[in-house]
Amino acid sequence: MNATRSFPPESELEALFDQLNNTGRWGTDDELGTLNYITPAKRVAAAALVQTGRALSIARDLDTTQSPNNPSPVRHTMCYQAHEPIGAVDELALGMHGFALTHLDAIAHVYRGQDVYNGRKAAAVATPAGLQFCDILAQKDGIFTRGVLLDIASARGESWLAPDQGVFAADLDAAEARQQVRVEPGDAIFVYTGLQKREAAQGPENLGQRVGIMPDAIRWMHERRIAVYSGDCVDAFPNPYSVRYAIYFHAIALAAMGLILLDIPALEPLVEICNELERSDFLLTMAPLRIRGGTGSPVNPIAIF
Amino acid sequence: MNATRSFPPESELEALFDQLNNTGRWGTDDELGTLNYITPAKRVAAAALVQTGRALSIARDLDTTQSPNNPSPVRHTMCYQAHEPIGAVDELALGMHGFALTHLDAIAHVYRGQDVYNGRKAAAVATPAGLQFCDILAQKDGIFTRGVLLDIASARGESWLAPDQGVFAADLDAAEARQQVRVEPGDAIFVYTGLQKREAAQGPENLGQRVGIMPDAIRWMHERRIAVYSGDCVDAFPNPYSVRYAIYFHAIALAAMGLILLDIPALEPLVEICNELERSDFLLTMAPLRIRGGTGSPVNPIAIF
Amino acid sequence: MNATRSFPPESELEALFDQLNNTGRWGTDDELGTLNYITPAKRVAAAALVQTGRALSIARDLDTTQSPNNPSPVRHTMCYQAHEPIGAVDELALGMHGFALTHLDAIAHVYRGQDVYNGRKAAAVATPAGLQFCDILAQKDGIFTRGVLLDIASARGESWLAPDQGVFAADLDAAEARQQVRVEPGDAIFVYTGLQKREAAQGPENLGQRVGIMPDAIRWMHERRIAVYSGDCVDAFPNPYSVRYAIYFHAIALAAMGLILLDIPALEPLVEICNELERSDFLLTMAPLRIRGGTGSPVNPIAIF
Amino acid sequence: MNATRSFPPESELEALFDQLNNTGRWGTDDELGTLNYITPAKRVAAAALVQTGRALSIARDLDTTQSPNNPSPVRHTMCYQAHEPIGAVDELALGMHGFALTHLDAIAHVYRGQDVYNGRKAAAVATPAGLQFCDILAQKDGIFTRGVLLDIASARGESWLAPDQGVFAADLDAAEARQQVRVEPGDAIFVYTGLQKREAAQGPENLGQRVGIMPDAIRWMHERRIAVYSGDCVDAFPNPYSVRYAIYFHAIALAAMGLILLDIPALEPLVEICNELERSDFLLTMAPLRIRGGTGSPVNPIAIF
Repeated sequence: MNATRSFPPESELEALFDQLNNTGRWGTDDELGTLNYITPAKRVAAAALVQTGRALSIARDLDTTQSPNNPSPVRHTMCYQAHEPIGAVDELALGMHGFALTHLDAIAHVYRGQDVYNGRKAAAVATPAGLQFCDILAQKDGIFTRGVLLDIASARGESWLAPDQGVFAADLDAAEARQQVRVEPGDAIFVYTGLQKREAAQGPENLGQRVGIMPDAIRWMHERRIAVYSGDCVDAFPNPYSVRYAIYFHAIALAAMGLILLDIPALEPLVEICNELERSDFLLTMAPLRIRGGTGSPVNPIAIF
Repeated sequence: MNATRSFPPESELEALFDQLNNTGRWGTDDELGTLNYITPAKRVAAAALVQTGRALSIARDLDTTQSPNNPSPVRHTMCYQAHEPIGAVDELALGMHGFALTHLDAIAHVYRGQDVYNGRKAAAVATPAGLQFCDILAQKDGIFTRGVLLDIASARGESWLAPDQGVFAADLDAAEARQQVRVEPGDAIFVYTGLQKREAAQGPENLGQRVGIMPDAIRWMHERRIAVYSGDCVDAFPNPYSVRYAIYFHAIALAAMGLILLDIPALEPLVEICNELERSDFLLTMAPLRIRGGTGSPVNPIAIF
Repeated sequence: MNATRSFPPESELEALFDQLNNTGRWGTDDELGTLNYITPAKRVAAAALVQTGRALSIARDLDTTQSPNNPSPVRHTMCYQAHEPIGAVDELALGMHGFALTHLDAIAHVYRGQDVYNGRKAAAVATPAGLQFCDILAQKDGIFTRGVLLDIASARGESWLAPDQGVFAADLDAAEARQQVRVEPGDAIFVYTGLQKREAAQGPENLGQRVGIMPDAIRWMHERRIAVYSGDCVDAFPNPYSVRYAIYFHAIALAAMGLILLDIPALEPLVEICNELERSDFLLTMAPLRIRGGTGSPVNPIAIF
Repeated sequence: MNATRSFPPESELEALFDQLNNTGRWGTDDELGTLNYITPAKRVAAAALVQTGRALSIARDLDTTQSPNNPSPVRHTMCYQAHEPIGAVDELALGMHGFALTHLDAIAHVYRGQDVYNGRKAAAVATPAGLQFCDILAQKDGIFTRGVLLDIASARGESWLAPDQGVFAADLDAAEARQQVRVEPGDAIFVYTGLQKREAAQGPENLGQRVGIMPDAIRWMHERRIAVYSGDCVDAFPNPYSVRYAIYFHAIALAAMGLILLDIPALEPLVEICNELERSDFLLTMAPLRIRGGTGSPVNPIAIF
C-alpha cells in the first residue's frame, strides 16, 4: 500500500477521461449518468437488504456557524407569524456546495475545461436561469440502492489516513477483502478514511492538504459500475494539475462518467452501526429537492439495515 | 355521504383534542409523536412492498414564480464561481410552509392556543433561535413506511370534490372498501380529492374556500394509528372556529396527536401509477433536512412500488 | 458627575413615558415623529454649515463575518452573469438591526408593552406583511439637518466610559459647555463615549454590560427637541427594569417621543475630523431605503463640513 | 431632431471608447472616476442651492412583486422577535441591479470585453469574494453635488419619447436652451424622456425596445465633465452591436470614463417640483451602502431645493 501518494502526469488524466467517458452510453439525451445502473431489479434487490429495520441518517446538521471550512453558513430565520402566533414559521438560505453541507451534486456541477457530461458544453449548459442540462432535477426520482461501506482506515490498520495520503484502487480491493463484501453494479459506495476521528483529534481539516481519491481508484469505480460515490475524501490537495484537472476526481466523475457524487456525508455513525451489526451493506435512500436548474441539493441520506 | 359539510361546535373540538391527545404516550420527552408507530418491524414489512422496483417522486418542483398561492416564492440564484468557471454553483432561499412547497411539518409548527405537543407551551418552545422542542430535527432519521393512497374522489364517483366539501371518516372507509385495502398502524396515508384535476379545469384553488379534513376523520386517523397524513386537502375554509381552532386539523394533529403532516404533495402521478399497477400501497421514503430548530423542511418523498 | 450609574424606579419611567409622549402633537396620523422638528427653514440653515466641502461617511462597512456581536452577518453573494460575463452582479441579504449594522429605526420598531407611537397598538401595527404604521418608508424623504457631536468622554476627561457607566443630562450639558456648542431644535446629536477606542484596547463590547443613556438624558433630548439621536451607546445593560422597559431608551424614544434613532454609527472618524476642524457641528444627510412596512434600514449617513 | 435613431458603426464606438478613456487621468490607482469632478468647492457651491428647504426622494419603493421587468423581486421578511414581542424586526434580500431598483453602479460593474476602468482587467477584478477594484465601497463618502434635470420630452414638445427613439447630444443642448440652465463640471444630470408617463398610458416598458442614450450624447457628457448620469433611459435596445458593446452606454461610461451611473430613478415627482419651483437645479445627496466588493447598492437619492 502506498504510504504517500504520487500523481500520474496530467496526460494520463486526459487519457483516463476518454477511457471512462460514458458519453452516448445511455443515449445522447441521457441526464442520469450512472443512475442508469440502478435498474428496477436493483431496487428490488436493495429493498431485501432491510432485515432489522434500523434507520440511520448519514447527513450532518445544517451548519449556521461561520468557520474557515464553512465561510458562507446556512442562514435560518424564524419568521413573524402574527402578534399572538398560532404557530412557528421560518426561512432558510443556503449555498449548495462546500465542505459543511451534506449534498448531492448535479452532474453538470463541474466541467473538464468546457466539457460537460454527454457531450455538452458549459457555455451552453450554464445560464443565469440555471443549468439547462443535467441539473439536479434530473435526479428527481431519488436514489434507492444498495450502499456499501468501504473502511479504508481499518484496511490499513490505522485510525485515519494522514492528510498526505491517497485512496488507491488497491485500498478499495483491500477493504473488500477484509470486509468480505463485493461492490456490484449500481451500488453506492461510502469510502471511509477516518476524517471525523482525525478532526476530533487534530482539529478541522486544512482544505489545502486533503486525502484524496487517486486516479486508479476512479478507474476502479468505472469498472465496477458503481452508481454513487460518497466518502470523507474527494479530490486530493495539493495536486500537480492545471486548472483543467484542479479537482480531477469531480471533473472525471461528473463530466466524463456522469457518476453521482454525494459530498460531505456523516460517516462515523454509519461505521459504528456497520461494526455493531457486522454488516457492510444496507439500503440507501435519498432524494434531492426538485430544483429546476439547480447545481446540487442538500439531502439527508438514510441507511436502512 | 355528505354533499356539503357541516361543522361540529367548537366545544366538540375541545373534547376531541383531549380524547386524541398523545401527551405522555411515548414518554414525557418524546419528540417523535406518531413516528413511534413506525417500528423496526414496520420498516421491514414496508420494504417487502417493493416488487416492481419502480420509483416515483411525489413532490412538486420548487416554485420560483410568485402568485396568490405562492406569495413568497423560492429564490434560486446562480453564483459566480470564477471568471473562467470550472463549474456551476448556486444558492437557495425559501420559506418552509405555504401552499406551493412540498414540505414536512415539525410537530411544534402549530399550537392549540399555547399548547404544543406533549405538554409543552409555545412561549417556551418557540424562540428566535428556533424551536427548542419537537423541531424538524427530531425527524432526522427519516420516514420509511407503508404508504396508502385513499382516492376519495373515485369513492364518491367524482373527478374531484367541490371546494365546499369535506372529507369525513365515512369517506375514508368508503375508499378503503372500494380499493380493497386497509390502513394499518404506522402507515402514511395520502388522501386524494382531485385537487390538481380541479385546478387544471377551474384555475388555482381559492385559499379561502377549501376542501378540508373533517373532525371525525381526524378521530379515524387516531384510531387507525397512522404515522403520517398527507393529501391534497388539509383544513377546511371557511370554518366557524375561533383562532384557537382556525386551522383545527393542524392544531389537533400536531399539538394533540403529534401526527406527522406532509403538506402539498403532488398526487396526480401517484394516482396514475396506482391505477396502472392496480395497487394502493407502496413503500414511502423521505427525510427532512437536518435543520436544528426548524419548523419544517422541504422534502422530496419517493414512492417505490 | 456620576462615577457609577443608579437607575430610578420603574414607576418613574412610567411617568417619564407620559411626560415625554408626543401622541397627537403633530396630528393623529403623524408618522414622522421628531422629524417634524426639521422644518424647511432648518434645512436651509443646515445647508449653510457646509464651509469646507469635506464629506465623511459615518457608517460601518457591512459586516459579513459572524461573531458574538454579529450572530447573523450580512450575506453578500457574487452572481453568475454569463459564461463570458460582460459585468459583475451580486445579491445582498441582511437583518435590519443588531450591533453590527449602521441603521435607522422605524418609529414602530420598538413598543412599550403594546404601545406604539401616536396611540397605536402593536397587534394592529405589526403584521407578517410589515408594519402598517410608522414603518421606515415614513422617513422616505430623508434626513437633512444639523448634526452635533457631543464628546462625553472628553468632557469627563477620559478616553472612554467604562461599561458600568451611564450618560446623564449633566454629561450632555458638560459636553456642550466644553465644546462651546448648543443643541437646537431639529438637530441630530451624536453622543460619543469612546466605545471604539475601548474595544480596540479591551476587545469587543460585552452586550450584557453596556454604557447607556440614562433616563434624565432622555428628558434632556425631549426638552431640546432634537430630531435624531445617534451615539455609541443606547440602552444601559444590565438594568433593573421589567420587560416593559427592558430597552427603556428605545421604548421611550420610539414609542413615546417618536424620536428617530440612528444605531451603530462609526464615530471615530467623526471625532477626528471635528477635532481637526475645531468644529462640533456639520450638515448631516442620510436617507433610508424605501422599504414599505420595514422596521428599519441600513444607511450610510454622510457628514459634510 | 432625429425622429428615429440611427447607430454609428461599432468601429466608431471603439474610437469613442479610446477618446473618452479616463485611464490614468486621476492616477493609476484611482477608483473614484468622475466623482473626482466633485471637489470640496463644488460641494460648497451645491449646498448654496438649498433655498426653500424642500426635500424629495427620487427613489422608487423597493418592489417585492415579481413581474417581467422585476423577475427576482426584493424579499422582505418580518422576523420572530419573541413570543410576546417588544418590537418588530425584519430581513431583506435583494439583487443590486435590474429595472426595478433605484441603485448606484460600482464602476467595475460593467466591462468592455475584459476592460475595466483605469486599465484593470475583469478576470483579476471580479472574484467570488467580490470586486477587488472599483467596488461600490469606493463611493463610500457619498455624492453631494448639484443635480440638473434635463427634460428631453418637453424640449421635443412631446409627453414622452417613443421606444424607438434616442437621446442625442442635440437633445441635451436643446433641453439646456429651453430650460435656460447649463450643465457644469461635477454635476449630476437627470435625463427625462417621460417613461413613467408612457408606462402609465401604454403599460410596462418592453425591455427589448428601449429609448437609449446615443453615442454622441456620451461624448457630450464627457466634454461637460459631469460626475453622475441618471435618467429614465440608459442603453438603446435593440442596437446593432456585438456583445462587446451590447450595453454600449454602460460599457463606455463605466469602463472608459469611470462615470457614475444612478439607475432607475423616480423622475416624475422631480419633474413636478422643478416645474412648480421653476428651477432646473437642486442639491443632490445620496450614499451607497458600504458593501466591500459590491457591484452596486440600492440608494435613496434626495433632492433638496
